[in-house]
Amino acid sequence: MTHTSVAAYAAPAPKAPLERTTIPRREPGAHDILIEIKFAGICHSDIHTARAEWGEGGHFPIVPGHEIAGVVAATGSAVTRYAVGDRVGVGCFVDSCRECENCRAGNEQYCTGELGWVDTYNAVGRDGEPTQGGYSTHIVVDENYVLRIPDSLPLDAAAPLLCAGITLYSPLAHWKAGPGKRVAVIGLGGLGHMGVKIAHAMGAEVTVLSQSLRKKDDGLRFGADHYHATSDPATFEALAGTFDLIINTVSANIDLNAYLDLLRTDGTLVQLGVPEKPLPIAPFALLGGRRSFAGSLIGGIRETQEMLDFCGEHSLGADIEVISADRINEAYDRVVASDVRYRFVIDASTI
Amino acid sequence: MTHTSVAAYAAPAPKAPLERTTIPRREPGAHDILIEIKFAGICHSDIHTARAEWGEGGHFPIVPGHEIAGVVAATGSAVTRYAVGDRVGVGCFVDSCRECENCRAGNEQYCTGELGWVDTYNAVGRDGEPTQGGYSTHIVVDENYVLRIPDSLPLDAAAPLLCAGITLYSPLAHWKAGPGKRVAVIGLGGLGHMGVKIAHAMGAEVTVLSQSLRKKDDGLRFGADHYHATSDPATFEALAGTFDLIINTVSANIDLNAYLDLLRTDGTLVQLGVPEKPLPIAPFALLGGRRSFAGSLIGGIRETQEMLDFCGEHSLGADIEVISADRINEAYDRVVASDVRYRFVIDASTI
Repeated sequence: MTHTSVAAYAAPAPKAPLERTTIPRREPGAHDILIEIKFAGICHSDIHTARAEWGEGGHFPIVPGHEIAGVVAATGSAVTRYAVGDRVGVGCFVDSCRECENCRAGNEQYCTGELGWVDTYNAVGRDGEPTQGGYSTHIVVDENYVLRIPDSLPLDAAAPLLCAGITLYSPLAHWKAGPGKRVAVIGLGGLGHMGVKIAHAMGAEVTVLSQSLRKKDDGLRFGADHYHATSDPATFEALAGTFDLIINTVSANIDLNAYLDLLRTDGTLVQLGVPEKPLPIAPFALLGGRRSFAGSLIGGIRETQEMLDFCGEHSLGADIEVISADRINEAYDRVVASDVRYRFVIDASTI
Repeated sequence: MTHTSVAAYAAPAPKAPLERTTIPRREPGAHDILIEIKFAGICHSDIHTARAEWGEGGHFPIVPGHEIAGVVAATGSAVTRYAVGDRVGVGCFVDSCRECENCRAGNEQYCTGELGWVDTYNAVGRDGEPTQGGYSTHIVVDENYVLRIPDSLPLDAAAPLLCAGITLYSPLAHWKAGPGKRVAVIGLGGLGHMGVKIAHAMGAEVTVLSQSLRKKDDGLRFGADHYHATSDPATFEALAGTFDLIINTVSANIDLNAYLDLLRTDGTLVQLGVPEKPLPIAPFALLGGRRSFAGSLIGGIRETQEMLDFCGEHSLGADIEVISADRINEAYDRVVASDVRYRFVIDASTI
């Protein structure tokens, strides 16, 4: 297999700052797409991985980035779905076993095959080589794992849809957010702000549950009908038993039992993040109303395309702050401090 | 309001043994049914309440019993649904607000009205008087909260259906146990054995997950297709990712994360009991497969009738040990020691 060397920003070792480097990308195979990356979003997962905070070690040096938007620069000989110049995206995975029940059902994110789903970075691909993500000028991805970005969306605001967008769209669609449904979103960060936009566009009545009212104006601008501070105990009295669906975008260990009580009968609280410790669930809140506590993880390829098309129709991009690549480390610190409205996106032309 | 005195067994005070006594029952009002109780099942909840183990105090003396089977002895002037001689049952509640969204939807067990659902015992009814349960010769209940017991079911084996039966039927029906679905039941006690019978009759492939293989023959006789010991770690490896639905009938604090891993994508683990401590849930098990951890509490009146009719069609009664009333205290100790196959039922003629 021949390779081309491309520019990238990589974490050379756990907790070391990211720095400019070059990495090899394989020559496009018959089914591959060579993408010229235009923008790459910064997801908190990038930081956890680059800093080895999930304790799994990692294939250092690591090039993070799984919110990738760009343009097709070349196609393999057998590629039929994309042509040079097409506006495309890549999300959290670049391959999966393609054979298990979940892959066949379009739920590649729950692939149970031997290969498993292949993370866009810090994984080992089908070819045995480490994968490297989107903080880079180019990437080569099998056409089956490439998404089409609608013309109505700017590439910079579209990039975060590939992770933050689908992470919220999938549970909102699965648990049927829509007209007549009351949906609450816990936390108004990178994930939460997309949740508000998408749930509102789906027609649901949307409530933001945020620690304070600091971002209330933003929340209402994104489409929230109501905005409550969870630091105020009155919030939990006033909203008891009112929501069909609550999406928790907060990764910290918060007391979920208080939130379960806000669900109506047959309501569901969906957890998107993975806190450090298990979450203590008091079953009374579940039994008294046949409530559910569920989890959801990004979305499959078909659903990700559906999400992009939906966001295209409704002109829903992320609210972003575009940065040059030399500011990635500074951006990381600001993400950790929750000092971003609402997603950093790296301009790949500066790499 | 005039009253009639009837014989009963009551707990005079927390932790005191139950003893024979007399209690007042109201004269049947226009919509009331006077039931001559034939049999009353012993549910673990009876013991928790009689022994004040749920720490809520209680309206002592308490006559427990919410698995009641008997015959209509008299009807109020406006009663249209039942006639003297009809075979009837009463379950865990004898009234509810009748006006809230849940009551109107037939989910009286999740009543959110001011009255709430009125427990069959240890509660205060619409008339302001304490309710007393089925360890008694007679009870007076509003016809809307009385169930019809099919002729094909003996009254003694039918009594436990009013709590144990509906507690299992409701989640099995709600989460659509049936042909092509793999259902696991954790624990083969009073609840679990009805779960196996009902899930099997619904057409599901049924697995029992029990601490040991001690009751395996019984489990297979009840209709289980498979039986595994949870004390054997190999069980959790062999069954990973296989169940659509797991019903946990165990009230103790067991490690549910190990069981969540046994669910397929979109599978649900339903908790029926309330352990002393919150259950620590590790979200990874939920996220990796969009799994749910849910709760379920008995069932509504309409669904309880549906359950009784279903059990009538399939001749599903509980496996019981009928006792005379003077053995209630002994039976309580045996229930606590899990020494019952599978439900004690009091012969009310011995009260």
